[in-house]
Amino acid sequence: MSGRLIGAFALIAALAPAAASAQEAAPASETSVFVFNTLLFLSGGMMAMSAAAGFALRAAGLVRAKNAASVCLLIIAAYAAATLAFWLIGYNLLNGVEAGGFLGVFALWAPSDIDPVGAGRASAAAWLFQAGCAAVPAAIVAGALAERLKVWPFLIFAAALSGLIYPIIASWDWGKGYLDAAWKFVDVAGATIVHATGGWAALAGALIIGPRRGRYGAKGVQPMPGSNLPIAALGTFLLWFGWFGFSSASELALGSISSAVSIARMIVNTNMAAAGGIVAAIVLASIVYKKIDLATALNAAIGGLVSISADPLSPQIWQAALIGAFAGVIVTVAATGLDRLRIDDTVGAIPAHLLCGLWGALVVPWSNPDASILGQLVGISMIAVFAFGMSALIWTTLKYSIGVRPGPEQEAIGIDRTSLGVDAYRDFDNG
Amino acid sequence: MSGRLIGAFALIAALAPAAASAQEAAPASETSVFVFNTLLFLSGGMMAMSAAAGFALRAAGLVRAKNAASVCLLIIAAYAAATLAFWLIGYNLLNGVEAGGFLGVFALWAPSDIDPVGAGRASAAAWLFQAGCAAVPAAIVAGALAERLKVWPFLIFAAALSGLIYPIIASWDWGKGYLDAAWKFVDVAGATIVHATGGWAALAGALIIGPRRGRYGAKGVQPMPGSNLPIAALGTFLLWFGWFGFSSASELALGSISSAVSIARMIVNTNMAAAGGIVAAIVLASIVYKKIDLATALNAAIGGLVSISADPLSPQIWQAALIGAFAGVIVTVAATGLDRLRIDDTVGAIPAHLLCGLWGALVVPWSNPDASILGQLVGISMIAVFAFGMSALIWTTLKYSIGVRPGPEQEAIGIDRTSLGVDAYRDFDNG
Amino acid sequence: MSGRLIGAFALIAALAPAAASAQEAAPASETSVFVFNTLLFLSGGMMAMSAAAGFALRAAGLVRAKNAASVCLLIIAAYAAATLAFWLIGYNLLNGVEAGGFLGVFALWAPSDIDPVGAGRASAAAWLFQAGCAAVPAAIVAGALAERLKVWPFLIFAAALSGLIYPIIASWDWGKGYLDAAWKFVDVAGATIVHATGGWAALAGALIIGPRRGRYGAKGVQPMPGSNLPIAALGTFLLWFGWFGFSSASELALGSISSAVSIARMIVNTNMAAAGGIVAAIVLASIVYKKIDLATALNAAIGGLVSISADPLSPQIWQAALIGAFAGVIVTVAATGLDRLRIDDTVGAIPAHLLCGLWGALVVPWSNPDASILGQLVGISMIAVFAFGMSALIWTTLKYSIGVRPGPEQEAIGIDRTSLGVDAYRDFDNG
Repeated sequence: MSGRLIGAFALIAALAPAAASAQEAAPASETSVFVFNTLLFLSGGMMAMSAAAGFALRAAGLVRAKNAASVCLLIIAAYAAATLAFWLIGYNLLNGVEAGGFLGVFALWAPSDIDPVGAGRASAAAWLFQAGCAAVPAAIVAGALAERLKVWPFLIFAAALSGLIYPIIASWDWGKGYLDAAWKFVDVAGATIVHATGGWAALAGALIIGPRRGRYGAKGVQPMPGSNLPIAALGTFLLWFGWFGFSSASELALGSISSAVSIARMIVNTNMAAAGGIVAAIVLASIVYKKIDLATALNAAIGGLVSISADPLSPQIWQAALIGAFAGVIVTVAATGLDRLRIDDTVGAIPAHLLCGLWGALVVPWSNPDASILGQLVGISMIAVFAFGMSALIWTTLKYSIGVRPGPEQEAIGIDRTSLGVDAYRDFDNG
Repeated sequence: MSGRLIGAFALIAALAPAAASAQEAAPASETSVFVFNTLLFLSGGMMAMSAAAGFALRAAGLVRAKNAASVCLLIIAAYAAATLAFWLIGYNLLNGVEAGGFLGVFALWAPSDIDPVGAGRASAAAWLFQAGCAAVPAAIVAGALAERLKVWPFLIFAAALSGLIYPIIASWDWGKGYLDAAWKFVDVAGATIVHATGGWAALAGALIIGPRRGRYGAKGVQPMPGSNLPIAALGTFLLWFGWFGFSSASELALGSISSAVSIARMIVNTNMAAAGGIVAAIVLASIVYKKIDLATALNAAIGGLVSISADPLSPQIWQAALIGAFAGVIVTVAATGLDRLRIDDTVGAIPAHLLCGLWGALVVPWSNPDASILGQLVGISMIAVFAFGMSALIWTTLKYSIGVRPGPEQEAIGIDRTSLGVDAYRDFDNG
Repeated sequence: MSGRLIGAFALIAALAPAAASAQEAAPASETSVFVFNTLLFLSGGMMAMSAAAGFALRAAGLVRAKNAASVCLLIIAAYAAATLAFWLIGYNLLNGVEAGGFLGVFALWAPSDIDPVGAGRASAAAWLFQAGCAAVPAAIVAGALAERLKVWPFLIFAAALSGLIYPIIASWDWGKGYLDAAWKFVDVAGATIVHATGGWAALAGALIIGPRRGRYGAKGVQPMPGSNLPIAALGTFLLWFGWFGFSSASELALGSISSAVSIARMIVNTNMAAAGGIVAAIVLASIVYKKIDLATALNAAIGGLVSISADPLSPQIWQAALIGAFAGVIVTVAATGLDRLRIDDTVGAIPAHLLCGLWGALVVPWSNPDASILGQLVGISMIAVFAFGMSALIWTTLKYSIGVRPGPEQEAIGIDRTSLGVDAYRDFDNG
């Protein structure tokens, strides 16, 4: 086929679905399929771990210096607690649900050679990836509520979120429970199941715990800018990298030509949504604010990544870029909106993870005929009610028992000194 | 074979090409080959993304603090813009050229299940890797011209570089165009096609835009040291890691024993060239300057990586280490040379990417009999003329239309405050 | 199998070894096995490289700002020097030992298509992974002795450690030498062979070189807290990520269902040990010190990772978590103990790498019936004597020849300014 011929039809090809064309090829051996699938899940799980690093760096860069060490501690400890909770209880809640049901079983997970849930893969590999996903909502919460959380209450919440709330929600769709059986709810890589769940939990916390002291005063919103933007940028890059893992491992298989083709498309769409988000936010900020805030641009990339997670496979490239671009607009606009409502979201997690998660789930039917607007709305609503309600219950219980926030003086001094006894940064006087 | 026997012949083996010895083995199935190839390109593409993070961190660490946020914005936005431009126009310019030709076709790219360019791989995977390569020249430019670029003119330049200039150059060799057909020009992983192209674009910009204000005064060169060397070191590590992806995916296949063997050699040679560069720079700096500047050592690693990119497969280990070591010398010496010419290269990108790219391309015939000095010189020259000429044209157009540089006061205050309205670092007063 | 059924037996399954159940499956072709194995080693080697970045960032964050650039230089240069030394001499020392012997052969390594040591993999891939492991002990030493090392003496020591001491030790077990043949010493991923070796070398250095000036005064221990905890956290995340590579590639094969299953278990156990370490350290610190120092929590993660390295495959999940938790306790308690002995360990490397390495090796027989307490003790002792003795010899020789420490004034000013002529951080005055 000549280059010219490709060119002549390329525009048409770009706008129409590529022809389904995986020809008959000699299949891989059963062993190779097993190894490929296991590799996919292990890669996804390890990249999810790098996303945890991304969350930590992003939050550390966007908080004030006096809270930069403690937010790192919250997120690395939440990752540790989440993986332990997902072993102790989460995995079998997620995967042990009966078809069409609402609640899995309460039981420890142990690896078996043959995965009883999905054939053709090491069960420990599938667990690692799922545990990495389970840690994400807790990291979202840590960022949104940073600078006003005591360590232990947060870790208890994080363990409950990753081990209990999230797995039950995920079981409804990924565990073949109610939302999958009754509504064919489509959320391939967790725009709502992972990200909106984290966002709802953060919103409940923001309402119950309240804003950082001094954030909303008589003079309006008091800016509390981040202290280390280059590491926030690095955190965003790490999340972007980690997202390639979330998107690709959500295909669940890598032992056939068609699954390899799907994974490649998913990764490219993931990239395009992030790129679309960044460009849209920069254009919008240039026009409206005459300044291009780096934190907003980074958050727009996250928003694009969240929105495409609902279905990274079905959209054409241009659709993925547009879905991400609209997410970039949401992120840019919504930050101001939250401040008007006096909802204090330290790193901008609620626009990026909650609003863009909802947007992503709602737009799925645009490119995926298996999804319906109604089904998506039902899924979004059930997740909203359960995630917000359970989170509100736990935050309230914590607030009126052991307490969640540090006192005014401690908050003024910073969590780093008062809870950790350290400074995040020292000796920077050699300039 | 006993250990002693290995030892007895090891020195000889080290100096002679290893015997070609991939014995007849049962081949992998067509499906496995497809999945392996797709994995190779996806890994390469994702690691290219981590190289973008590396460029951002490296530049952020080497600029002054007042420009550290904006250079992060430039590089993450350039990555976004580059991948969009490579979808809109670049890919088919690169791959749609006729054999022996000079110009591909102008057309959108869309993924197809069967890659019309290369069989046995998902087309989206190949695109991802190529797009990641296309983003590199823009990141090189951002580093070299940092601290004196407005955001929008740079992004326009970056899109033109990644979507137009680079793909046309790459098409001459990797798209089977003129340089491949007529001269068998060898540049396996882009020492000139990627890195010298970025370097020429940076040089054109440095000449047209001019040095940072105050850099070259009556008293000679005014040092403007980097503000955060640990993150510059991290950026270099990330680039080194990303380079394993550039080198390995340039083999283009991973479905046979011989391709796996080649990839392993390429990665080892890549590592050895970087190691050689670092050691050479440290030795040289110790002798000549009595100080071992970290920034120079890091740049020497980059120089080694660039130089081996011309052909990471053919050299023996010792040749790879020597090629990299000489690159380390180039980097150490050339920084002073550029300053004498009053060419202001903020992060030292021109020595590392341009000069070491040329060195790498010229030294290919030493280890690769398929390459000729004449062919390499023709390739180098064509790339130089086109990359420098086109870049000069675009920079000049931008300079006399929307303008490229901020005003003197804005430059003195820093791009972060004047264009982004932020400080990269705040609150670092708790030491 | 219904979800309920899984649930009913899950607790039992969690406490009992999963049934060996890799059923008869069609094997992968010889080519696929070769590619899988090569991929495993390449991934392990590249992730080992990211661990080097982790060591550098971790140390840079935990030293005072005046030494943050130089410790980055030490570690990136040590990685370079280590890979060169492992090519020049280390590889054939490690792999060229006769069965049951003590000393390999002195010879350069050169890649061959067919690996004479292990069949079914590219020799260069296996080399890359082994070289990455060889670089680890040097990075451990750089962290422990940071803030009081001159560059060149350290690099000479690092090359000797990675090229000579470590390979000889590793040859006794991994090269099928004495410890493997006579004692079936089990250290799968290097808890003692890699980490305790680095720890002994650090301890010898700490004793011979002495503490940082001012560390132990009349008033007791003078705290010298780290200057940049977020990048120390990032370094720990990078090490954790890199450890997935160390653990998995230590399985040495990925071409069968059973090896894929083993690798997945190893990675999960690795994760669980780190998680257990963090949680244990946080609980202990909350109770005993009423503060949760971030540096201690991070070090506990490292301690957990080191301890599980002795055998990441045999333990059940709960055993892995407990092994890591006890390592977290060791790390938390031992820091104070070292200070009482006036042994100055700048980043806490001796507790994490040496003590937890010993703990990990001793606990292997708990889960692995192939190991014996006596065999483990013999291995630990031989490694201790050789690593400590050789290190002490080299440190002493260096001390009384070219000198190891900078002078008092240089140490007070910092290595960055006196040896490198730079500041790690500048211009941080815009808060």
